[in-house]
Amino acid sequence: MTVSDTLGAVGELAVLARIFPLLPSAAHELLGPGDDAAVVAAPDGRYVVTTDMMIHGPDFRLAWSTAHDLGWKAAASNLSDVAAMGAVPTALVVALAAPADSPVSLLEGIAEGLRDACAALAPGCGVVGGDLSVSSTLTIAVTAFGDLEGRPAVLRSGAREGDIIAVSGVLGAAAAALRILFEEAVDSDGQPDADRAALLRDRTVAQLAPTPPITDGRLAALGGATAMLDLSDGLAIDSARLAKASQIALNFDSRALGAHPQLALGGGEDHSLLATFPPGMPLPGNFRRIGSVIVGSGIFLDGSPVSKAGWDPYRDWNGGRG
Amino acid sequence: MTVSDTLGAVGELAVLARIFPLLPSAAHELLGPGDDAAVVAAPDGRYVVTTDMMIHGPDFRLAWSTAHDLGWKAAASNLSDVAAMGAVPTALVVALAAPADSPVSLLEGIAEGLRDACAALAPGCGVVGGDLSVSSTLTIAVTAFGDLEGRPAVLRSGAREGDIIAVSGVLGAAAAALRILFEEAVDSDGQPDADRAALLRDRTVAQLAPTPPITDGRLAALGGATAMLDLSDGLAIDSARLAKASQIALNFDSRALGAHPQLALGGGEDHSLLATFPPGMPLPGNFRRIGSVIVGSGIFLDGSPVSKAGWDPYRDWNGGRG
Repeated sequence: MTVSDTLGAVGELAVLARIFPLLPSAAHELLGPGDDAAVVAAPDGRYVVTTDMMIHGPDFRLAWSTAHDLGWKAAASNLSDVAAMGAVPTALVVALAAPADSPVSLLEGIAEGLRDACAALAPGCGVVGGDLSVSSTLTIAVTAFGDLEGRPAVLRSGAREGDIIAVSGVLGAAAAALRILFEEAVDSDGQPDADRAALLRDRTVAQLAPTPPITDGRLAALGGATAMLDLSDGLAIDSARLAKASQIALNFDSRALGAHPQLALGGGEDHSLLATFPPGMPLPGNFRRIGSVIVGSGIFLDGSPVSKAGWDPYRDWNGGRG
Repeated sequence: MTVSDTLGAVGELAVLARIFPLLPSAAHELLGPGDDAAVVAAPDGRYVVTTDMMIHGPDFRLAWSTAHDLGWKAAASNLSDVAAMGAVPTALVVALAAPADSPVSLLEGIAEGLRDACAALAPGCGVVGGDLSVSSTLTIAVTAFGDLEGRPAVLRSGAREGDIIAVSGVLGAAAAALRILFEEAVDSDGQPDADRAALLRDRTVAQLAPTPPITDGRLAALGGATAMLDLSDGLAIDSARLAKASQIALNFDSRALGAHPQLALGGGEDHSLLATFPPGMPLPGNFRRIGSVIVGSGIFLDGSPVSKAGWDPYRDWNGGRG
């Protein structure tokens, strides 16, 4: 990078001209970037919408995540919220704020990550608009849209006694990867180290560039899911939300939670899909059974109560840590 | 404020519980906050979408803007982009990131500003979802939606030779107010000063809490507007965009631009609506004639070419200035 290739030197319009060709187009786009707003098709007369921000510091470190990772994860985490409603992701808008001395290649990498995540996880979904700003804190705010294809949305509140609890995607993998980064991808002073992180890529990709099972959201809806949500704060916290909304209890089978049930319960950021299905039906897609819905409240592991544990951004992030 | 009333001490869920009751509800909301995503009605099978971020530093100073101002302006600037398509604003989603030591009252004030701006400028529009994050830089990212009510969107590209150029809303008022803030709302060291800013409120409100003519967007579409856009970067820059998209030239009448035509041409952030209309038709709403569309390219004032001037966030913000 030379100084002449920073956002400040190149300027907003020229940066946009370099980024636009990298962004994926959306099949539902009726009018794309270039006017005051985009126009997107909503064939069934409704659209699903969710928004989620990624912030330098609490959400990522530039020594660990590549620019491509940031775009990929920003797309993946939002696509997962759309999928958790049983919808098909159709479009994204992206507001990005970066320091003026950032290289243009940072934004190009983020755009390529958005493109590749859409292509891999939600073909047909693309970026229909956005906003570029300057900020001392690199910030990526994605808003994602989806099409319910005429079906009711799958809410958190529909689970019933006797339903099967099933999950599609990994459990605890993102948290395990984050632990590896904090323990091994640091220098002798405990600071994030890019060279060490690169060597650990295979063991940390679940955290840095997760691959949530987006297409299984639609399959769950078609397969009769009674309730569903995205696992972003960990199975224990998120499943307790589903249990509370449905006014039931959830009992997990520890043998179905892998070699480390506590990691599976506590780990956040997997962006897997948790859903409940009526008993006796085949589970769609890659869903696998991990427990059953019972009368009561709260969550249980092999019949014993599980205490909640998870991530609160305001309580849990220590800005001084890096 | 006590330390116990900060975002970090109160925690995300409790903060959300305090903010939700303050947010305006949306008439088009089918499913609101509380699940993985919201569901919004799109009666004509399409929706308009735009996104815009406000960042502490380049976009506002906390010594000058109240929390209510921040919510108001974040809503107003996004509503204006929806209106500029000829659409009726229906819903917002809001992603907000703030330092953990921020008082909860900051977020409450922002929520009240969002609520009051929607009520005043776009009745029926409300907040259907959002995201709270921690960041060292206070950041508000709004995504806004609109309904075209079956009409084509009014693009930048439809102006034709002979059309009337008209504007609804102020010209240069936001820039004049910003100049007053930089010159008079500072202490002896040139730093933003809250007490001085409070005394200047009447002369600075156009910058701090603008009131763009949102309902005139729909009226322009109904009234036959051939092209329209939101004046966010200044009349000179934005009108040049319309001229380029329409492959025509614009000639402004200096007598119609007020006492300070150069301020009207150069000033940004007014969020007024610029539109072109076929000649001989009554101008709708509060639109007033400021010039006419001519053959050629670029923009002119009383027949003389106007050079562009405006705001590029990457070039023009000096982070060290405060």
